[in-house]
Amino acid sequence: MVPLEISDRDQAAFELGIKLGALFHQFVGTPISLRSKESLERAMEGAIENQPYVEEAEVRIDEAPLRAAAGREFDYISLEGRMIGARVTVSYRGIRCVGRLSYNADLDFPLMTLERMEEV
Amino acid sequence: MVPLEISDRDQAAFELGIKLGALFHQFVGTPISLRSKESLERAMEGAIENQPYVEEAEVRIDEAPLRAAAGREFDYISLEGRMIGARVTVSYRGIRCVGRLSYNADLDFPLMTLERMEEV
Amino acid sequence: MVPLEISDRDQAAFELGIKLGALFHQFVGTPISLRSKESLERAMEGAIENQPYVEEAEVRIDEAPLRAAAGREFDYISLEGRMIGARVTVSYRGIRCVGRLSYNADLDFPLMTLERMEEV
Amino acid sequence: MVPLEISDRDQAAFELGIKLGALFHQFVGTPISLRSKESLERAMEGAIENQPYVEEAEVRIDEAPLRAAAGREFDYISLEGRMIGARVTVSYRGIRCVGRLSYNADLDFPLMTLERMEEV
Repeated sequence: MVPLEISDRDQAAFELGIKLGALFHQFVGTPISLRSKESLERAMEGAIENQPYVEEAEVRIDEAPLRAAAGREFDYISLEGRMIGARVTVSYRGIRCVGRLSYNADLDFPLMTLERMEEV
Repeated sequence: MVPLEISDRDQAAFELGIKLGALFHQFVGTPISLRSKESLERAMEGAIENQPYVEEAEVRIDEAPLRAAAGREFDYISLEGRMIGARVTVSYRGIRCVGRLSYNADLDFPLMTLERMEEV
Repeated sequence: MVPLEISDRDQAAFELGIKLGALFHQFVGTPISLRSKESLERAMEGAIENQPYVEEAEVRIDEAPLRAAAGREFDYISLEGRMIGARVTVSYRGIRCVGRLSYNADLDFPLMTLERMEEV
Repeated sequence: MVPLEISDRDQAAFELGIKLGALFHQFVGTPISLRSKESLERAMEGAIENQPYVEEAEVRIDEAPLRAAAGREFDYISLEGRMIGARVTVSYRGIRCVGRLSYNADLDFPLMTLERMEEV
């Protein structure tokens, strides 16, 4: 085993991961409908933008399952990870990282990906 | 043991309890600051108003701990139950129930109370 | 509007609702597999049995989606409400209430029901 | 801005962050007492060990606030981030990362830290 000295770049990637994990696990399960979609998106963005080193958080919830629910007796559903499309940008000591949470159809899985890194 | 036939009134009180339990356990832990307070309050109200039989949900988050955090290195905190002031009104087949979540200083506890019931 | 005096029976039903709302919204989203199913069931029961007036909480998580996930690249899923089968018994000043969370196939919905009440 | 090619090392740190964010935001708010402490610790470990690339997750919940609650009318509390002591080890394509969630008294904050990285 070769120990590695933890760099700002490591730290930046780590911080980005925290934000995506938080976003998913805080809000999955929330009752959501077409009526409340926008207020939840804004609250999710605002919550994550509070966290250290976050430049920007964008959240879009998939409307298709909300539309499908709209005609039913109970016209709302619980937020699932696969319905969340999010992009979070973190900037830590000159390293900017962009990550994404989005549904991956091949894996049938809500995937978190480290999409882009750059020195600023 | 004497079995009781479940009434609309029982059902109404039960439904109200569900909403307060949901409100607390869905959102406690959310990163919150003075910046994001209002968007979270609106999202909490909108989420609960999706649920069956809810007439109205009002949420106010205590600003004092947010103000205390505002000057610190990490200027946000995690939402705690004791910071939530909420009033939820449920109406089920002619029975209206009003419940409250609020911090009880004597018990040092975020208390959920069935505050009012009426036939409408 | 006719005001109703809140009874022990109202209170008992209200308390039961709180527990089911808490159970759902605290744990939906938890990463779960066949490996961790039992530990999560026990923790869900133990968490709810902490709450006031709870006599017993029983939780069974549906294994079918866990088995379906077991062969995949990511061999776990996120707990959904429809996977939870729970029965909670509350006893408040001589009134015992039993409630259930279970998936209702007709409604395609994880339904919370007030199943039984009795004087003890 | 200089684009950086995302390395296995970046990915490993990112994955570790996800796990700590998930651990915190999934379980904060859970009703907890001395009685249920161990079952919750095991469930938290089991949940996180489901996630991709996790070698090990260890969770210890601070007993002091549980003991303080034990004598009160409501003898449980809601899990707070500051009560969680966790160590998570992730291994991604030959890079092992160890992270920690622990209460930082100076900052009065539950801090997530990237503690150690090594090539294996």
